[in-house]
Amino acid sequence: MTHEQVLFTYVGAFVDELARAGVRHVVFAPGSRSTPLAVMLARHPDIRLWLHLDERSAAFFALGMAKARREPVAVVCSSGTAAANFLPAVVEARYARVPLLLLTADRPHELRDVGAPQAIDQIHLFGSNVKWFVDAAPPEATPGMLRYARMLAARAAATALADPAGPVHLNFPFREPLMPLSPEEDAPAEGVATGITVSRAPRVPDPATVQALAKELAAARRGLIVCGPQTDPDLGPAVVGLARALGFPVLADPLSHVRCGPHVDDVVLDAYDAFLRDPALVERLAPDLVLRFGAMPTSKPVLLYLQRHPAARHIVVDGGDGWEDPALLAAEVVHASPTHLCSALTDLPLSQHWERGSGGEGRPTWLTTWQQADRAARGAIAQRLAGMDELFEGKVFAELAALLPEGSTLFAGNSMPVRDLDTFFPRSQRAIRFLANRGANGIDGVISSALGAAAASDGPLVLAIGDISFYHDMNGLLAAKLHDLSATIVLFNNDGGGIFSFLPQAAYPEHFEALFGTPHGLDFRPVADLYGAAYTRIATWDAFREAVAQGVAASGLSIVEVPTDRERNVALHREMWRAVSAALAGEVPAWA
Amino acid sequence: MTHEQVLFTYVGAFVDELARAGVRHVVFAPGSRSTPLAVMLARHPDIRLWLHLDERSAAFFALGMAKARREPVAVVCSSGTAAANFLPAVVEARYARVPLLLLTADRPHELRDVGAPQAIDQIHLFGSNVKWFVDAAPPEATPGMLRYARMLAARAAATALADPAGPVHLNFPFREPLMPLSPEEDAPAEGVATGITVSRAPRVPDPATVQALAKELAAARRGLIVCGPQTDPDLGPAVVGLARALGFPVLADPLSHVRCGPHVDDVVLDAYDAFLRDPALVERLAPDLVLRFGAMPTSKPVLLYLQRHPAARHIVVDGGDGWEDPALLAAEVVHASPTHLCSALTDLPLSQHWERGSGGEGRPTWLTTWQQADRAARGAIAQRLAGMDELFEGKVFAELAALLPEGSTLFAGNSMPVRDLDTFFPRSQRAIRFLANRGANGIDGVISSALGAAAASDGPLVLAIGDISFYHDMNGLLAAKLHDLSATIVLFNNDGGGIFSFLPQAAYPEHFEALFGTPHGLDFRPVADLYGAAYTRIATWDAFREAVAQGVAASGLSIVEVPTDRERNVALHREMWRAVSAALAGEVPAWA
Repeated sequence: MTHEQVLFTYVGAFVDELARAGVRHVVFAPGSRSTPLAVMLARHPDIRLWLHLDERSAAFFALGMAKARREPVAVVCSSGTAAANFLPAVVEARYARVPLLLLTADRPHELRDVGAPQAIDQIHLFGSNVKWFVDAAPPEATPGMLRYARMLAARAAATALADPAGPVHLNFPFREPLMPLSPEEDAPAEGVATGITVSRAPRVPDPATVQALAKELAAARRGLIVCGPQTDPDLGPAVVGLARALGFPVLADPLSHVRCGPHVDDVVLDAYDAFLRDPALVERLAPDLVLRFGAMPTSKPVLLYLQRHPAARHIVVDGGDGWEDPALLAAEVVHASPTHLCSALTDLPLSQHWERGSGGEGRPTWLTTWQQADRAARGAIAQRLAGMDELFEGKVFAELAALLPEGSTLFAGNSMPVRDLDTFFPRSQRAIRFLANRGANGIDGVISSALGAAAASDGPLVLAIGDISFYHDMNGLLAAKLHDLSATIVLFNNDGGGIFSFLPQAAYPEHFEALFGTPHGLDFRPVADLYGAAYTRIATWDAFREAVAQGVAASGLSIVEVPTDRERNVALHREMWRAVSAALAGEVPAWA
Repeated sequence: MTHEQVLFTYVGAFVDELARAGVRHVVFAPGSRSTPLAVMLARHPDIRLWLHLDERSAAFFALGMAKARREPVAVVCSSGTAAANFLPAVVEARYARVPLLLLTADRPHELRDVGAPQAIDQIHLFGSNVKWFVDAAPPEATPGMLRYARMLAARAAATALADPAGPVHLNFPFREPLMPLSPEEDAPAEGVATGITVSRAPRVPDPATVQALAKELAAARRGLIVCGPQTDPDLGPAVVGLARALGFPVLADPLSHVRCGPHVDDVVLDAYDAFLRDPALVERLAPDLVLRFGAMPTSKPVLLYLQRHPAARHIVVDGGDGWEDPALLAAEVVHASPTHLCSALTDLPLSQHWERGSGGEGRPTWLTTWQQADRAARGAIAQRLAGMDELFEGKVFAELAALLPEGSTLFAGNSMPVRDLDTFFPRSQRAIRFLANRGANGIDGVISSALGAAAASDGPLVLAIGDISFYHDMNGLLAAKLHDLSATIVLFNNDGGGIFSFLPQAAYPEHFEALFGTPHGLDFRPVADLYGAAYTRIATWDAFREAVAQGVAASGLSIVEVPTDRERNVALHREMWRAVSAALAGEVPAWA
């Protein structure tokens, strides 16, 4: 065999096994050193390649795809700083538990650390952020080493998927010549053709744990279920079933996959971010037990509410052996699949306390008090929004709730959009999927992640994003142009970092605009010209509705700019909280 | 003291010592967690803050400043993926030996790895790429801990500067509230006011090493000096003095700081990349000794020429204890300051062999043969370019050589521009400074690095960059708008990756355009609209000259697009090499 034949046979075995392991999509940033991977991936009939030119965006695009498809997606780059550009998405994949495969080409051993061009130290380049790192053996085409190449692929995919899902990094040293085989010349057939199957068992809780937990839950008189960001779409029906059986309210973060879908009923609360800002209600709604699934919710009022009640028994369930408890409140951590746990608990006789908290005829129960607060808050918000002509970032999400068709995906940018989504998008029985990068909550890579999700979705995708985050990943827009993707971007433009106006730093005039407000003065219309997107800057809600409806119906990329003002945005939010407080004072009955 | 007073006193001591240690410029990407650093840096009278919104660009901007100023420049960000975006510039700083200080804010210990937002593992985030990492102690304002804060600053700056210069990472855990002191309220005065001085000695070679080396050099009959990329501006005069004394030719990579400046004379050769493509000449010019300074030169023909002559004694001098020898040819590695070594050698009596290689009256010497080849190649190129109306990427650098005023900086993008710079920009006694990111040779971050250099330079700055590299760091252009920087960008637009057309992959039609050529179809004019830059797409050389002259004379950002064709570019380069070969055959006399 020639050097090239060895190279392409080894890489061919790896790529073939990757496809067998279920990897269907590979994002690819061009380079010379990665030629063997690029060519064999392009040749494989079961793999689709997605070209990107900026590795940072490429990795976030792969992350978005993997998140939407809930399967491993690979991203390939050449040696050097190209690989370093993957780090932000790798970090997000680690904390958001997304199965991302990083395949980096490298210089061979003799060119490492001797001043060769584009040779950097790629060993453990992503440090503690990957679940598994392998510096692959130099290519050989012996039967043993072809099995080794297949092992790498099968194991990388399985490791990335295993709970907690996360990133895996394989580094491939390739020696020149990297010249592909001629088109007529196939890589020689190898002996192995069967592939390797990796199976894994769900983390089903053992019956003793379930029994003990059931006893605690049944004994609780003021129990509460909190669902934060998590990725299992089956949790919704399971947790609603459990909540109904227990008479517990469910605080459903949009990113929990619990707030929308056919399983939703009135135990699912969506206005907690508004009504838990009311200090009186926070005192009154003292829980004795809190059962938490997923990450800590986005809502700061929820966090403060939980911190206000440390004496309640806080039980944190985590299917990925993690420790999602930044408030350090947990008395009990259950490492088991949340969905399996909910189902197992619901199968037991729990419902004797359904009328829990009832002090007698006609008095509201624990659950109905929560429900009344939720209704009052949602009603006050809806009323205030209905009469509002002014462009307000929060109202965008209420409008989107009405505009988005069944099967849509709404991707929320970090900082303000994900918070406004939480506050202003009511629960629904329609299948609306919410996504966001809530692993590390970065404002970077959001456009690429959303477009990756769009590429992996059947229904329409709308991204709601602020101007700094939009600016940060404008390069990601190229994907829409190169791959004819359809998406609608709602761009909140308040010329700077809107969230800082809500923080204590806003009270510090000396350097506020220069250090935190950070106006950039950019008019983003030319960006649409650059990437061939439709662009509308709206001035009225009618125009907003029309632009979004058109964007959702059209193919291609549409950008709908909503111009807002940072100070006014804070004032309008605060008006909202006052209206909610007033409604609560009038409507929520006393209960103790 | 309140929590805030402790926080701001501790950070104030650190920032004050940073300024005392010579840090004058700090690049700053906004965030909440970094508030204490941001506020104290903004308040310090000796420090200038440069706001950026994309941390990747921010770090490259700091790198460009540090490279141009040859002093430590700091870059600050908040916690989370913000810090991860620094990695590409950190890797470049490591390999290019640039003193870059990474100051990252972090969550306090109790919020780490418990699901808190924007809390990622920042411990050793940049792995082996930094010279020093410290997870700083939580803020305290005792005299001892204020001395600790000052130690961190003084030592970070000194460590970053010490040979080999490189990046240093300090991570600061800050607990809320991060609210700044009120403007009237100063941080309490601390006891220490003197600061810490760190001195370091240059790596002067010991006399025995110098004597032994002098003997080797004096004995060599066909010695050659090769200067690759390095950062010491004093090497030029020192190495030219040595070369004159020895009668050795000097192959001067533009990034060696040897090719241009008042020290330049006819021992400095600049056309080697052209004439060492001639196989006959490569055979004829067999050296017996090669003395190398800096990294391996950019020129591939130089590398192949050196590899063709492994029997020569290869001596690699490295002032940073590195191993810049990707061809693995070194018989001797000297870890000492190149400039000091050259001066020490020149002080010894070496010149007895000045007429080395002379076989008798009228016959050319070793040096004059090299000089004749250089003249013949440069002449053939100049002649061919003079008559060329067609837009050719190589000719741009010959034109720039004539256009750039004394004191200019020419920043070259990686991939083709830095190679064309090497081939087509002749030596000059004028002070023209060449910069490029040749640590890891990435195409990322180039605009930001160049604008950072522009911000740190007195004279005009021209950046020559290809379209993929331009696209990669378009976000970097915001710096020019935010900080009123002046620079001229010559943008080679051949709609894709031009260098791949020179590689063996080009012979592989099956996937070439999709995997390597990678056309993006972008018209970059809207980018100039976005950032308020002047934009000219030129069609003639007259228009090019006019646009560059205007850009260099004007304040603000000018983009001069040179549209070219990838295939035609390869053909024109090959024509050039044929013309050079023909000239060599006619003009370079036989010598053995």
